[in-house]
Amino acid sequence: MIFDVRKLASEFIGTLFLVATVIGSGIMAESLAEGNAAVALLGNTLATAGILYVLITCLGPISGAHFNPAVSFVFWLKRELSTARCALYIIFQCLGAIAGVILAHAMFDQSLIQTGVKIRFGSNIWLSESIATFGLVATILTGLRHKPESVPSLVSLYITAGYWFTSSTSFANPAVTLGRSFTDSFSGIRLVDMPFFVISQFLGAAFAYYLVRKLLSTNRS
Amino acid sequence: MIFDVRKLASEFIGTLFLVATVIGSGIMAESLAEGNAAVALLGNTLATAGILYVLITCLGPISGAHFNPAVSFVFWLKRELSTARCALYIIFQCLGAIAGVILAHAMFDQSLIQTGVKIRFGSNIWLSESIATFGLVATILTGLRHKPESVPSLVSLYITAGYWFTSSTSFANPAVTLGRSFTDSFSGIRLVDMPFFVISQFLGAAFAYYLVRKLLSTNRS
Amino acid sequence: MIFDVRKLASEFIGTLFLVATVIGSGIMAESLAEGNAAVALLGNTLATAGILYVLITCLGPISGAHFNPAVSFVFWLKRELSTARCALYIIFQCLGAIAGVILAHAMFDQSLIQTGVKIRFGSNIWLSESIATFGLVATILTGLRHKPESVPSLVSLYITAGYWFTSSTSFANPAVTLGRSFTDSFSGIRLVDMPFFVISQFLGAAFAYYLVRKLLSTNRS
Amino acid sequence: MIFDVRKLASEFIGTLFLVATVIGSGIMAESLAEGNAAVALLGNTLATAGILYVLITCLGPISGAHFNPAVSFVFWLKRELSTARCALYIIFQCLGAIAGVILAHAMFDQSLIQTGVKIRFGSNIWLSESIATFGLVATILTGLRHKPESVPSLVSLYITAGYWFTSSTSFANPAVTLGRSFTDSFSGIRLVDMPFFVISQFLGAAFAYYLVRKLLSTNRS
Repeated sequence: MIFDVRKLASEFIGTLFLVATVIGSGIMAESLAEGNAAVALLGNTLATAGILYVLITCLGPISGAHFNPAVSFVFWLKRELSTARCALYIIFQCLGAIAGVILAHAMFDQSLIQTGVKIRFGSNIWLSESIATFGLVATILTGLRHKPESVPSLVSLYITAGYWFTSSTSFANPAVTLGRSFTDSFSGIRLVDMPFFVISQFLGAAFAYYLVRKLLSTNRS
Repeated sequence: MIFDVRKLASEFIGTLFLVATVIGSGIMAESLAEGNAAVALLGNTLATAGILYVLITCLGPISGAHFNPAVSFVFWLKRELSTARCALYIIFQCLGAIAGVILAHAMFDQSLIQTGVKIRFGSNIWLSESIATFGLVATILTGLRHKPESVPSLVSLYITAGYWFTSSTSFANPAVTLGRSFTDSFSGIRLVDMPFFVISQFLGAAFAYYLVRKLLSTNRS
Repeated sequence: MIFDVRKLASEFIGTLFLVATVIGSGIMAESLAEGNAAVALLGNTLATAGILYVLITCLGPISGAHFNPAVSFVFWLKRELSTARCALYIIFQCLGAIAGVILAHAMFDQSLIQTGVKIRFGSNIWLSESIATFGLVATILTGLRHKPESVPSLVSLYITAGYWFTSSTSFANPAVTLGRSFTDSFSGIRLVDMPFFVISQFLGAAFAYYLVRKLLSTNRS
Repeated sequence: MIFDVRKLASEFIGTLFLVATVIGSGIMAESLAEGNAAVALLGNTLATAGILYVLITCLGPISGAHFNPAVSFVFWLKRELSTARCALYIIFQCLGAIAGVILAHAMFDQSLIQTGVKIRFGSNIWLSESIATFGLVATILTGLRHKPESVPSLVSLYITAGYWFTSSTSFANPAVTLGRSFTDSFSGIRLVDMPFFVISQFLGAAFAYYLVRKLLSTNRS
């Protein structure tokens, strides 16, 4: 059955908690860090890494724990997700992301929906998002092949690195990017910059899919 | 036998060390952090996450390592804990929490029992505590179902995230909240604010119990 | 054979690297942290936790990876280590600790042996060291019983917590305390304060041994 | 077949991501840390540790995940890598390192190739690099013998410690050192200082090989 409530609820709840964590920890970290943005990013990193491990471990057995349209897109490319299921996953991920930003703002007593104003624009930033998503998808695909039980740790630690080594801080997730365009806080992004991020992310994901297929297929020779 | 000394000692010692760590690391972190509260929270986070992994791994096989009345309450809802056993667990958790605050103050040469003065009040804060406890209980219940050997890591990393993504810093534990109302330090809470936290925590726990049951029961279909 | 070169070399090398890490990371962290001691302690914590996991995993199969006279003393109490072997272990741990402080100073271009001047004195500090060592030994003993493959993680994360929740920053190791009395840096201790630390540590270790034996023995009933 | 495209691609991609992470996270951390170099090093540490775990887990089954000429050299000493294969590995690691520095600079919109100017010179620094590489190689060799599935965690946590306890911040990798000599940022090194690092690293690696062989061989007696 395509419309599996349980799986869609899992994708919705997972993306909700992921986005609430990214945005909530950004608000908390910035408000405490006395202007030292590296200290704020440390808090943001630990929180995001922690919740990713939890969400993927706990919800993975239910829905696969994508929480990310770029990841669902790759499983569609791999023909492990039908077109209809993939579309539903992406819709519920986006709804979860918007619910997540609302929840974070509610907890911190802020306007529930805001307009992102942080400028994140430029070809180097787009390159950064492509690389970030390339790395995330390559990590998931090679991890699933070689050590599936480590995928929660792998994604968590990849994003830990990504928050620091990419100039865009590795959004690497179109649904999360959508959510982050509705907050005017530490982890926000200007609404008009969002589409370029999303395109870059899908390009990086597709490139990872093809490269990993090539790398692993020759495995047999 | 309801009055199992070994189990009750385990709940007492575990909650004692948990509260001593939360409060002790808060005192240490604040005294060193030169007013940068985000740096203090980083130290507080690492210490709490570390001790949670240790206590749950080492004492779990003895008493189940609840250390948390909201968790014992959920196991009572699940009928895995009798009413009498549940009441005893909660009593010993609260005694352990008070012993923990006394121990922390003794180690740092402070008055053994203090009056919490940090204001933590407001509907957004209560929402935050409900969400925090909802997430903790949902993590434990789904983790026990899908990957029980990872529960120590799951709880440790969930609280790592919770310290940052919720506006209340995720007390998520009525016994720990009780203990924290007896300290006038970084991790304290005003005594009159405590009951609202406790109510919010039990509500979040109950909501998690019902939602997870629904989410996992459809698992079979 | 009592005088097993391989085991003694393992205890020597392990304690050497442990002390070099504690002291070296303290020097590095303090020199970079611009007076924010909490930031310095974060670096000190990560380094110590990291090397403990590595040393216990890599050298545990050779010598048991004690690197700590209080731990060897407890295994002697448990009659798993003969008196002669225990004495040799402690001697090589102390030699390793002194070699470690010399190595750290050499790497940072400092006088190889210094006199510790940091005052760490007072009954609350001794209580703190007793609790710290009690917790370390209890962690090791219950961990070995319930989940031996997690001991490297358990010790690493216990010390992560201990660096923050105890007022003495959890030396919890007589050999390391000896080494730290020969450095005038972040992690040093005044030579005359050292014996009180060592006594407190052995008391905490003995108390842990007796309490854990009681707690686990009733396990059978 | 000596020229195995898949293995060489793995060494190239792995070293590329490793160097891009070391340098990229250094640029990010320094730009945000408001002059507190310890905070910058914390971000640099988390990112490097995270990516090492990911790269070794995901690419280890393909090429062994050396990403380090000193490590390939040791496997050549162990006769597990032929001379030709070892030479190819080292060439592709160096190419990957240079590609990594270019990628990091591109993402941060900087000149693609720069001249390292950070002075890292002196016998204590060389000692530090020898010790750092000694420890890394000893960790890998003993880890492979006693607990091969933990090697990704072991390397990740060893480097976490190494960034702090050695005065040179543990480059411990000739290819990474080469890459870092082409950046004028937080993690750079003056080009003329590079050869001394490389020599120290190979010496440390060789020493580790001989010592571990001795330590583990007597294991049988």
